[in-house]
Amino acid sequence: MKELSKLMGYRSDVKVVDATLRDGGLVNNFYFKDEFVKELYKTNIRAGVDYMEFGYKASAEMFDENKFGKWKFCHDDDIREIVGENESELKIAVMADVGRCDYKKDIIERKDSPIDLVRVATYLNTIPAAVDMIENIAAKGYEVSCNIMAISNAQESDVKNALETLSQTPVDVFYIVDSFGSLYPEQIARIADLYMDFAVKYGKKVGMHAHNNQQLAFANTIEAVGDGVDWLDATYGGMGRGAGNCQMELLLGFLRNPKYSIYPVIQFVEKYIRELKEEGVVWGYDIPYLMTSLTNQHPRTAIQFIKDNRTDYTEFYKEVFSQE
Amino acid sequence: MKELSKLMGYRSDVKVVDATLRDGGLVNNFYFKDEFVKELYKTNIRAGVDYMEFGYKASAEMFDENKFGKWKFCHDDDIREIVGENESELKIAVMADVGRCDYKKDIIERKDSPIDLVRVATYLNTIPAAVDMIENIAAKGYEVSCNIMAISNAQESDVKNALETLSQTPVDVFYIVDSFGSLYPEQIARIADLYMDFAVKYGKKVGMHAHNNQQLAFANTIEAVGDGVDWLDATYGGMGRGAGNCQMELLLGFLRNPKYSIYPVIQFVEKYIRELKEEGVVWGYDIPYLMTSLTNQHPRTAIQFIKDNRTDYTEFYKEVFSQE
Repeated sequence: MKELSKLMGYRSDVKVVDATLRDGGLVNNFYFKDEFVKELYKTNIRAGVDYMEFGYKASAEMFDENKFGKWKFCHDDDIREIVGENESELKIAVMADVGRCDYKKDIIERKDSPIDLVRVATYLNTIPAAVDMIENIAAKGYEVSCNIMAISNAQESDVKNALETLSQTPVDVFYIVDSFGSLYPEQIARIADLYMDFAVKYGKKVGMHAHNNQQLAFANTIEAVGDGVDWLDATYGGMGRGAGNCQMELLLGFLRNPKYSIYPVIQFVEKYIRELKEEGVVWGYDIPYLMTSLTNQHPRTAIQFIKDNRTDYTEFYKEVFSQE
Repeated sequence: MKELSKLMGYRSDVKVVDATLRDGGLVNNFYFKDEFVKELYKTNIRAGVDYMEFGYKASAEMFDENKFGKWKFCHDDDIREIVGENESELKIAVMADVGRCDYKKDIIERKDSPIDLVRVATYLNTIPAAVDMIENIAAKGYEVSCNIMAISNAQESDVKNALETLSQTPVDVFYIVDSFGSLYPEQIARIADLYMDFAVKYGKKVGMHAHNNQQLAFANTIEAVGDGVDWLDATYGGMGRGAGNCQMELLLGFLRNPKYSIYPVIQFVEKYIRELKEEGVVWGYDIPYLMTSLTNQHPRTAIQFIKDNRTDYTEFYKEVFSQE
C-alpha cells in the first residue's frame, strides 16, 4: 500500500503537462481565440505548470489549413506570437502523430524553435516509424516523449516489445495513454509497474494521459503518480476529446509541491472555460462514453451520439454492444 | 497490490445499495413522483441490486410533513404502497438519523414492517446515542448498519474508539462515509484497513458511501471493494446531495457478478433521471464542490452557490479558504 504520509510530501521530479489546446483542440477543431491562448500561457506560468502543449504539428499536405484552427499545425511563428522568447520556466510542447507529420521538414533545429518537447504519438503497430521520428527529432536537440495510444486492448507482450524497442532510442518519456478511458486504477497500477521496469532500467521517465469516460481520469492519474509515474497530463476544465481528460484544477488541488498554485487555474476556468461552454463547445463525462469504454472502443460513436443530441441511451447501448 | 486477475472474478458477499431516494431526496426535498419510485423499485429488482433505501425515518414532531415529500418519513404504509409484500430478492432499507428519529415509536417490529435494514447515521460525538438506537432496532429484528459520517476531519483515535464501541453492539455493518467528498483512494485504502480490522475481529461487514466532490466517488468505491469492503452505496445518475454519489451505472459496469445487470439501469437513467434533470433538479460535480472538499468542509456553501446561479468561482474560492 502507498503511504498516506506521502500525501503530505511530494516528488520534485513530477511534471505537469497542460494538454488543453491539443486534446481540447480535438473538440473545437483547434479554433481557439488568440486571447484564450495567451491567457492560458500566462495562467500556466502563474500556476507552476511545467509544460504547455500547443497542439499538433500536423502535415499541411495531409490536412487543409483552411479547415482547422492554427494549433493543429503549430507553426513556430504562431507559437512565438504567443510566447515571444518564452522567458519563463514553462516549457513548450507539441504533439507529432506518426504518419501525419512532416517532421523532417516541419520540425527544425531546436535552437531555432520556441519548442522544447515533441510528443510522438503512435499506435503499437507503428512503433518502427515512431523510432525513426524519435531519433530524428532528438538529434535536432528536443526533449522527446513517446505516447503509445490505445493500450487498453493491446497484448501485454506487444507493449513489452514496444517498450524494449523504445528503450534503445533517445526518447525521454514513455507515456501510458488510456485512449478509450477503459482502464481502472488497479490496471493502471499494473501497467505503471511494467513501464517503470523499463524506465528504471534504461533511465527514462513515465507519463500518464487519462480520459474521463468512466469518471476515472483524475483517479487514474493520482494512482499513477503514486506508482512512480512522473509526467502527468491534465487540461483546464478537463477539456478534451469526448469525455475529456484529467482536470487541471483537481490535479493541482492534489499535488503538494508548493510550486503549483490552483488559484490561477480557477480564474482561467471561471472566465475562459465557462465562455467556451456557453458558446456550445461540448465535452465531459456522459453515459455514452461509459458504454464505449466498457466495450473498449474508440469513443467516436459516443461523440457522434452527443453531437446528434440523441438521448436514447438504451438504443446506443444496443448499438455499441452489438459491434463487438 | 491488488490482483488484476480479480477483476475477472467477484466476491459473492458484495452488496449493492441503491441510495437514490435517500441521498437524492436531499436534492429535491424528497418530492419524487410515485411512478418514479415504483419504476425505481422494479429497476432495482431487474438490475440485481441488493438493497433499496427508500429515505429517512424522520421525526414528524421535528419536521413538518407538509414541507417535505413522503420519503423523508418513510411510513411503512407508503413503502407497502410501492412494494406490496415485496416478493423479491431486493431488500428494503431506510435511514434513521441519531437525534432526528422517533425510533422507539416509529420503527415497529420487523415482522410487521416491509423494512429489512435500518441504517443508523451518526457523527462521532453521538456514538452513545447511536448505540442505544442500534440495540433497540436490532432487538426488533432488523438488520442494522451504522453510518459514521464526516470522518474525513476526525481523529483516527476517535474513529477507533467508535469502532471498538460499535463492535460490542449487534450492528451488522460499519459504513465508511466520506460526507465531504474529501478523501483520496489512498486514504480510503487506509481507512478500509482500519474498519476491516474491527470487522474481521468482531464478525461485522464494512460499507462505503462516497461523494463526488472531486470526481472520486466511483474510484473510492472500487478502491474500497478491492480492500475487502462489501457493502457499496450507489445512486442512479449519481443523484445525491451536492456533487452526488457513486453512479450506479458505473458501479454495475465494474462489478463482475452476473447477478448484476447494467441495462435496466441505463433504461431508468434515460427516462427518469433525465426527466428530473430536465425539470431543473441539479446535482453533480462542479468547481465549488472541489473547493469545499479541499478544505474539508460540509458542501452547504457550495450547494448555495449553485442554487444562486453564481459563477464567480474565484470569489467563492476566497470565501471558502478564508473560513479555515
